[in-house]
Amino acid sequence: MPIIVVDVMPKPEILDPQGKAINGALPRLGFTQFSQVRQGKRFELTVDGEVTDEILAAARKAAEEMLSNPVIEDVVNVELVDEAGTDDEAHA
Amino acid sequence: MPIIVVDVMPKPEILDPQGKAINGALPRLGFTQFSQVRQGKRFELTVDGEVTDEILAAARKAAEEMLSNPVIEDVVNVELVDEAGTDDEAHA
Repeated sequence: MPIIVVDVMPKPEILDPQGKAINGALPRLGFTQFSQVRQGKRFELTVDGEVTDEILAAARKAAEEMLSNPVIEDVVNVELVDEAGTDDEAHA
Repeated sequence: MPIIVVDVMPKPEILDPQGKAINGALPRLGFTQFSQVRQGKRFELTVDGEVTDEILAAARKAAEEMLSNPVIEDVVNVELVDEAGTDDEAHA
């Protein structure tokens, strides 16, 4: 089933305590290759049936109005993917 | 500066209370186009200088060992982007 991915990141000027914590922990685990880490959110919206331009527009509206807080976050990406990697269900 | 994006999602068989909450709220706000919502994480790792295969491998290792919990989460994507969308600072 088609999935619309929405990516939300904290604005650059906003402090990101989770990212900072990871930033501090990485060198202790031997990862010295990265100068900065920021943590945001990824949403996967499943659509039953065909994804029309209207549905994509609705996803963009939902991303701006509900999935992100415009005071502290930016919607950096809204894109259609056919099937998310997490979709091949394991039925465990 | 180059950025490596790491996407982590809850495994399909794992309950996702945040996604469920959004799923319940969307129709109340008029968004009836989506049958399911799942919420995961997006990390942006900044690299100073060139991104070699070794650095990408380190990012994959960090994604598996530190940025995700393999019991409940899948790393669905590790990819190099030149500059993240959040980088064109708004200076609001």
